[in-house]
Amino acid sequence: MSFNTFGHMFRVTTWGESHGPAIGCTVDGCPPGIALSEADLQPWLDRRKPGTSKFTTQRKEPDEVRILSGVFQGVTTGTSIQLMIENTDQRSKDYGDIAQSFRPGHADITYHQKYGVRDYRGGGRSSARETAARVAAGGVARAVLRALVPGLAISGYMVRIGTKGIDRARFDASQIEQNPFWCPDAVAAEEWAQYLDDIRLNHNSVGGVIEVVATGVPAGLGAPIYAKLDSDLAAAMMTINAVKGVEIGDGFDAAMLTGVENADEIRMGADGPEYLSNHAGGILGGISTGQPVVCRFAVKPTSSILTPRQTVNTKGNEVDLITKGRHDPCVGIRAVPVGEAMMACVVLDHLLLDRGQTGGVRGKIG
Amino acid sequence: MSFNTFGHMFRVTTWGESHGPAIGCTVDGCPPGIALSEADLQPWLDRRKPGTSKFTTQRKEPDEVRILSGVFQGVTTGTSIQLMIENTDQRSKDYGDIAQSFRPGHADITYHQKYGVRDYRGGGRSSARETAARVAAGGVARAVLRALVPGLAISGYMVRIGTKGIDRARFDASQIEQNPFWCPDAVAAEEWAQYLDDIRLNHNSVGGVIEVVATGVPAGLGAPIYAKLDSDLAAAMMTINAVKGVEIGDGFDAAMLTGVENADEIRMGADGPEYLSNHAGGILGGISTGQPVVCRFAVKPTSSILTPRQTVNTKGNEVDLITKGRHDPCVGIRAVPVGEAMMACVVLDHLLLDRGQTGGVRGKIG
Amino acid sequence: MSFNTFGHMFRVTTWGESHGPAIGCTVDGCPPGIALSEADLQPWLDRRKPGTSKFTTQRKEPDEVRILSGVFQGVTTGTSIQLMIENTDQRSKDYGDIAQSFRPGHADITYHQKYGVRDYRGGGRSSARETAARVAAGGVARAVLRALVPGLAISGYMVRIGTKGIDRARFDASQIEQNPFWCPDAVAAEEWAQYLDDIRLNHNSVGGVIEVVATGVPAGLGAPIYAKLDSDLAAAMMTINAVKGVEIGDGFDAAMLTGVENADEIRMGADGPEYLSNHAGGILGGISTGQPVVCRFAVKPTSSILTPRQTVNTKGNEVDLITKGRHDPCVGIRAVPVGEAMMACVVLDHLLLDRGQTGGVRGKIG
Amino acid sequence: MSFNTFGHMFRVTTWGESHGPAIGCTVDGCPPGIALSEADLQPWLDRRKPGTSKFTTQRKEPDEVRILSGVFQGVTTGTSIQLMIENTDQRSKDYGDIAQSFRPGHADITYHQKYGVRDYRGGGRSSARETAARVAAGGVARAVLRALVPGLAISGYMVRIGTKGIDRARFDASQIEQNPFWCPDAVAAEEWAQYLDDIRLNHNSVGGVIEVVATGVPAGLGAPIYAKLDSDLAAAMMTINAVKGVEIGDGFDAAMLTGVENADEIRMGADGPEYLSNHAGGILGGISTGQPVVCRFAVKPTSSILTPRQTVNTKGNEVDLITKGRHDPCVGIRAVPVGEAMMACVVLDHLLLDRGQTGGVRGKIG
Repeated sequence: MSFNTFGHMFRVTTWGESHGPAIGCTVDGCPPGIALSEADLQPWLDRRKPGTSKFTTQRKEPDEVRILSGVFQGVTTGTSIQLMIENTDQRSKDYGDIAQSFRPGHADITYHQKYGVRDYRGGGRSSARETAARVAAGGVARAVLRALVPGLAISGYMVRIGTKGIDRARFDASQIEQNPFWCPDAVAAEEWAQYLDDIRLNHNSVGGVIEVVATGVPAGLGAPIYAKLDSDLAAAMMTINAVKGVEIGDGFDAAMLTGVENADEIRMGADGPEYLSNHAGGILGGISTGQPVVCRFAVKPTSSILTPRQTVNTKGNEVDLITKGRHDPCVGIRAVPVGEAMMACVVLDHLLLDRGQTGGVRGKIG
Repeated sequence: MSFNTFGHMFRVTTWGESHGPAIGCTVDGCPPGIALSEADLQPWLDRRKPGTSKFTTQRKEPDEVRILSGVFQGVTTGTSIQLMIENTDQRSKDYGDIAQSFRPGHADITYHQKYGVRDYRGGGRSSARETAARVAAGGVARAVLRALVPGLAISGYMVRIGTKGIDRARFDASQIEQNPFWCPDAVAAEEWAQYLDDIRLNHNSVGGVIEVVATGVPAGLGAPIYAKLDSDLAAAMMTINAVKGVEIGDGFDAAMLTGVENADEIRMGADGPEYLSNHAGGILGGISTGQPVVCRFAVKPTSSILTPRQTVNTKGNEVDLITKGRHDPCVGIRAVPVGEAMMACVVLDHLLLDRGQTGGVRGKIG
Repeated sequence: MSFNTFGHMFRVTTWGESHGPAIGCTVDGCPPGIALSEADLQPWLDRRKPGTSKFTTQRKEPDEVRILSGVFQGVTTGTSIQLMIENTDQRSKDYGDIAQSFRPGHADITYHQKYGVRDYRGGGRSSARETAARVAAGGVARAVLRALVPGLAISGYMVRIGTKGIDRARFDASQIEQNPFWCPDAVAAEEWAQYLDDIRLNHNSVGGVIEVVATGVPAGLGAPIYAKLDSDLAAAMMTINAVKGVEIGDGFDAAMLTGVENADEIRMGADGPEYLSNHAGGILGGISTGQPVVCRFAVKPTSSILTPRQTVNTKGNEVDLITKGRHDPCVGIRAVPVGEAMMACVVLDHLLLDRGQTGGVRGKIG
Repeated sequence: MSFNTFGHMFRVTTWGESHGPAIGCTVDGCPPGIALSEADLQPWLDRRKPGTSKFTTQRKEPDEVRILSGVFQGVTTGTSIQLMIENTDQRSKDYGDIAQSFRPGHADITYHQKYGVRDYRGGGRSSARETAARVAAGGVARAVLRALVPGLAISGYMVRIGTKGIDRARFDASQIEQNPFWCPDAVAAEEWAQYLDDIRLNHNSVGGVIEVVATGVPAGLGAPIYAKLDSDLAAAMMTINAVKGVEIGDGFDAAMLTGVENADEIRMGADGPEYLSNHAGGILGGISTGQPVVCRFAVKPTSSILTPRQTVNTKGNEVDLITKGRHDPCVGIRAVPVGEAMMACVVLDHLLLDRGQTGGVRGKIG
């Protein structure tokens, strides 16, 4: 993996800053002959785009994606696909404070130290806006997966905002699209609305936890040792802005289990092995089992808040900083479609890798 | 990253199975002129080797590492370094059950499905024995770091075994080497001994959580977007056997914080910026801040236990399986030196990447 | 290296088809703080652009390059640089013959066989138009080299068109920019003009040989074994459309020399070792010597000609094919700036790799 | 590609010095279930090993290869394969001159300048001995190709030694194994014996040209733009010691052809397209056509000769140097099996890459 590329065979290279003319990505290694148009990608971008509720940034971006290469007469050609999204809402404004001072908890200071220069407008390259390119790439991955593995589905949702988690007993997948939080628990969603309003009105922000599940993933994807499916998922999720933790299956709770409890026992079903539980989150030894692949990641609270925080500026002066502007009270909300996109890209990448090495043949059981 | 290689510039490729003639790794991209001998590497391997207490597998392996290339007259030559560790305790035994049946929670079944064949002796390639090669490579990384960044130190320890965590108020670094658990809390260590004895006598196993901290890491290592220091750490730790979760800094707890709480405020010290807290775990925007880099990972309980579990075999028959043999009641213990090794490799890799791209020059503050 | 990316640290990913809306590339790993604007890149593109004489295709493309990311306030930021060139002269025309029939000697048939679909308009992805993106990336590399290695210079020129070579005794670097062939031999240039006119009027095309020389390259760039400077140059040049051979230094002539003749003897100069000859082309063991790096590559004749050739179409019918359109009688001419660009990218890539691994320190002599 | 690794999916990482305890390589990404034993590899190594005639170095090395991992019960497991060859003929001797002085035309000086240290014993890492590891890896590739593409065959031979080329009219494949030069022209082989004896007795050496042909390569392998089959072949061949030029098909001669001549016209055969000629060397647009893949490379004369040459030493003194020891009068001879091995690795790599991206489906003609 290089600085701006992820993936082994299905490789995505992103570019662009928050307030430059455009952002985008190159998708390399896409299988040929897959039906693809902007209309296949736009719905995914619409899910991520800002300004859809009062709980996300009020920046207005249509986030219209254009396919500039790699598609001919409605199908992918196997060559590199360029996806571009123009930035349209780069308000002319005074960036004075942010330009010279470093937001505590933000990449401002580390970019400055590493590079000696940074595009401070809207966070520049470190802006979560970069994730729009991932969502576009994820749309390509989904189109390919739909063609190659028809039953595969990917679903992301929030399981926690700040101190408020969901109740798994109330989990209802049909609720996810019914509230601005991608929350599968209708009761929690109402609670979150009130909670997040308070956070926002108090000039504060809060973190969250997103869970992404892929069902219908065939057994045998992933590879020992350093191309483990879970390692690639962990890397992919950890590259999303503000993510501070990643779990597979039971994750950190697995550390508290005994071997007797943690064993996902196996019985023989009509179509092969069936598991009595899924502590493993669908991955054993870095390779998919055929069960749902379950990944969770934690997003820290946005560092851009209206409450003053102590910091320093480029001159080395100590200052108090308030971050004006249009920011997400819980940036985790818009990370849901991003997590889904990363899951799609990683799963497809491993599907291609696997058929490259093994031809897609599977060892028999029974 | 390919199947058996990790790292960008400081690249490690491992090979070998648990019960083959040897295991080892190739270290590529090592800086030249670094003093290195087997004596520099062996102490790290001794920390990981089995059989040092009743809490780890009773397999007896001297784990003697040999340098077969890349070192001349006591210094690295800049060419590839081959490290080999012979396997000496491959007991001749009947692998009957394991050969045909799949341990629940183990990679047995996924290797079989993916490849149609697996070396079932001691877990073959999926054995934790592979991690000895990483520890050897980590020893090389430490030797280089000692030369290039004299003040840098890496320390790993356990903060949880099963349901028993440490008390941070009793954290004492000097305790880490004083008990068989790498536990920084002397009281917890005693409790763990009793707890783990019970687990072991009940033919069970248990998980754990390891924390690895690197101090003295210069600001500016890591890179946006897909070569983030935290993403590479997450990938590296997640490749360790049985790891199910990775956190940076406050990790999942950060999801419960507000932006006001999570902001690591900055003041101006004598030598540059100083932070009033370290929720970020030393990384902002994927780039090191100069604070301690803090990484935690969760290890699930060993799936090889003496308690029967329901499973199937290659013929598709349902069977109950007991895993005889010499296994770790808490495999997390021996993961501590492995986590340290991965931290050393990742930090060095980014040090080399950074000086490649930037020349190591830093943006000034003040 | 993936399908559309080249380079290790200074990595270039290109995208776009001849008749799509645009082409471009992402430059990853560029050092920060380098002065860069479109004005630095455009002159290189102008050298490659079509329609500048009757000896190149009459397609009219302004080839205006835009920097969409990675540059802020006139300097590179260390993040990915997106360069885009819009396609403006995609004439609406009937591609009937080319769409269904395969030009002999062209990638038409292999793209069709591999992918089952191809963008036949103007050659699609296989068009030499892709090389404009390389020239733009090469402009970035040159800007970085100018800052990091002030004395380094790169010069490309033609040494052969078809059966007509240059006379080395008449080599005059000042002539290169004085004729439409980048020919350093004024007499040969006149001869070539007549020769190529005949070729063109006879509805034919012809090949050529380009030599690219980099002077001022420091000793020590490149690396054993599979990152040899000459191996990377060979790969880079061989990726240019229509290239069928690459040589370093004496190249194939070296096979005819004896060891006594081929030895570039060394004497001690004021600033270090000096060589009495340069059969090696500035590279020994894959590492630069400090002498001029000399690379030559052969370009086959354009396969798009107005003379009918026998071929088949997608239906498997045998047909005779004439390629109408605006084609280069000697595509090698426009490959000169492309070869220079590849040299610039490869040398810079190795400069960054070297300072990553060694810190740029050199072993002393004397 | 890193310093010591080549290949995309079928990746080979080599290690070892000429006079260290052993050399070897790790083969990563090998398909599972392929029958493989040392007996499959040894014959290829025997072809390359020194001391088989008076025309190669008199160093005596049995070059016995051991498989240390990745094979179980006679078949590949899909995990990394470690191949090791012990060095047995490292004569204890005085390296005085070579240790401090730089052979003109040899990597001595560049390794010293880059790394500040070098293993001077027998050339260390720059020794052609490294190619034994490639031949072993090539043996693995051949075993896989035999299973996946039964009709594929790879043949290498010399077409030139010094000033003496073969006569293509006398080309007889059955002669290749009948003389110590892998020469397909029996008359030339006799001439070469006399010529090379003279060279050797005159304390000199000479270069050569090797041609490697792969027949039965399916159409569709390789990929635009930077994973072109010919680019990867060029890179692979150029990494072989002493290689200074690489050609595909007509190579440099193609520069002298017209488009009319160079067009490989296509007719429809019983099984698909058939070509009336093969100027292209089986590759168009970087993708195989199904015709024989033809690659040629030039090897310079060995720089280790018994005739004194002017050079300098590490102290900066000017000296005359004679290289004593057991050297090849024409190192190109032993490069033949190495070139075959590289061809096998590259073709297999692209076979796996192709089925990863496209699933191995081919676009239809007719």
